[in-house]
Amino acid sequence: MHIGVLGTGTVGRTLAQALVDRGHEVRMGARVAGNEKAVEWAGAGGPLASEGSFADAAAFAELVINATAGAASLEALEMAGAEQLAGKVLIDVANPLDMSKGMPPTLTVCNDDSLGESIQRAFADVRVVKTLNTVTASVMVAPQLVPGQHTIFVCGDDDVAKATARRLLEEFGWPSEAILDLGDITAARGVEMYLALWLRLWGATGSGVLNIGVRTPES
Amino acid sequence: MHIGVLGTGTVGRTLAQALVDRGHEVRMGARVAGNEKAVEWAGAGGPLASEGSFADAAAFAELVINATAGAASLEALEMAGAEQLAGKVLIDVANPLDMSKGMPPTLTVCNDDSLGESIQRAFADVRVVKTLNTVTASVMVAPQLVPGQHTIFVCGDDDVAKATARRLLEEFGWPSEAILDLGDITAARGVEMYLALWLRLWGATGSGVLNIGVRTPES
Repeated sequence: MHIGVLGTGTVGRTLAQALVDRGHEVRMGARVAGNEKAVEWAGAGGPLASEGSFADAAAFAELVINATAGAASLEALEMAGAEQLAGKVLIDVANPLDMSKGMPPTLTVCNDDSLGESIQRAFADVRVVKTLNTVTASVMVAPQLVPGQHTIFVCGDDDVAKATARRLLEEFGWPSEAILDLGDITAARGVEMYLALWLRLWGATGSGVLNIGVRTPES
Repeated sequence: MHIGVLGTGTVGRTLAQALVDRGHEVRMGARVAGNEKAVEWAGAGGPLASEGSFADAAAFAELVINATAGAASLEALEMAGAEQLAGKVLIDVANPLDMSKGMPPTLTVCNDDSLGESIQRAFADVRVVKTLNTVTASVMVAPQLVPGQHTIFVCGDDDVAKATARRLLEEFGWPSEAILDLGDITAARGVEMYLALWLRLWGATGSGVLNIGVRTPES
């Protein structure tokens, strides 16, 4: 598959490399083509790796991953361009963290709205799926780093798009039974607001390599 | 122990009865003594059960549990009275749910503050511990309803108060290793904001009898 990864941070580079390693052609997008980190990644990433602007990456892609900083995601997607994104699956893994007020970070949007919903509203004909934002980058592409049964969430308004996201999660090693569909894109509130707990779990356990497993009497 | 349970809803009655069943003397508090649900509970609860106003329950108690509706908790605690609460451990199990805007509920406070912190600020010499708000009432007092390893969180500024809360959790059946200390009372943001996810987990699994287990490479 041709995949555009928007964002050159740890999450973007981790996802981009994991996708290349699984045989996908990946273009990493940044504000402008030639971004230092994107060029470095593309140079080391092998023949399936390339880089360009947000718009280049979106135009190249059948599927787009938003791995930009959440507070800047809407601007980044505007730069990618509604035309380049139209009709495509957009996997949103970003968290709307506001670092400007010091630690701990707060969320730029929460409670009665979310980044996932904001993106879906701004780009109505993009098929947004929120997933993977509840784990650190290394766990996204290697869930076996955390032993035992643990859960990854998906939500979005488009069932076909969620099925596509689910296949990518399975390529990363998430067992089918670990993937929990929370329903429509408004569930992005839940998985984004979880970040406030996740930050404290990190603090309490001493590592971001962690996850939660949902337990029910049937599980 | 003499325990005051503020609140006559499902959570308050479930906790009060579980405490009586374990040999504690429990007074259930409501806005006014003689509350219908409190009288009904005290009548059926056996010789260790009694009821009264919020202030009665607080004055009676060595340890107080806030099981009122979160949006009304500060008012209820004002009615209980700072003098009756002073120096005591207050276990806050409430969630600041705002049902006034329809479903899904939002939170009356979140992101850069929490109900737990609000209570600690308003009653500076009360030793607030936030716990149990992340599970439904039946699971609070019977964690074995959810099979497997799953986690209950505690946070608060007073380590002795947290140790007291931990002993109560163990009386309810929470294994010591299932109790995770998230640090000071600001972690209440995390466990309260988790409610947005919990509501979707309920929707996705079809039952509120659920919990999450924290997984790390060491667990």
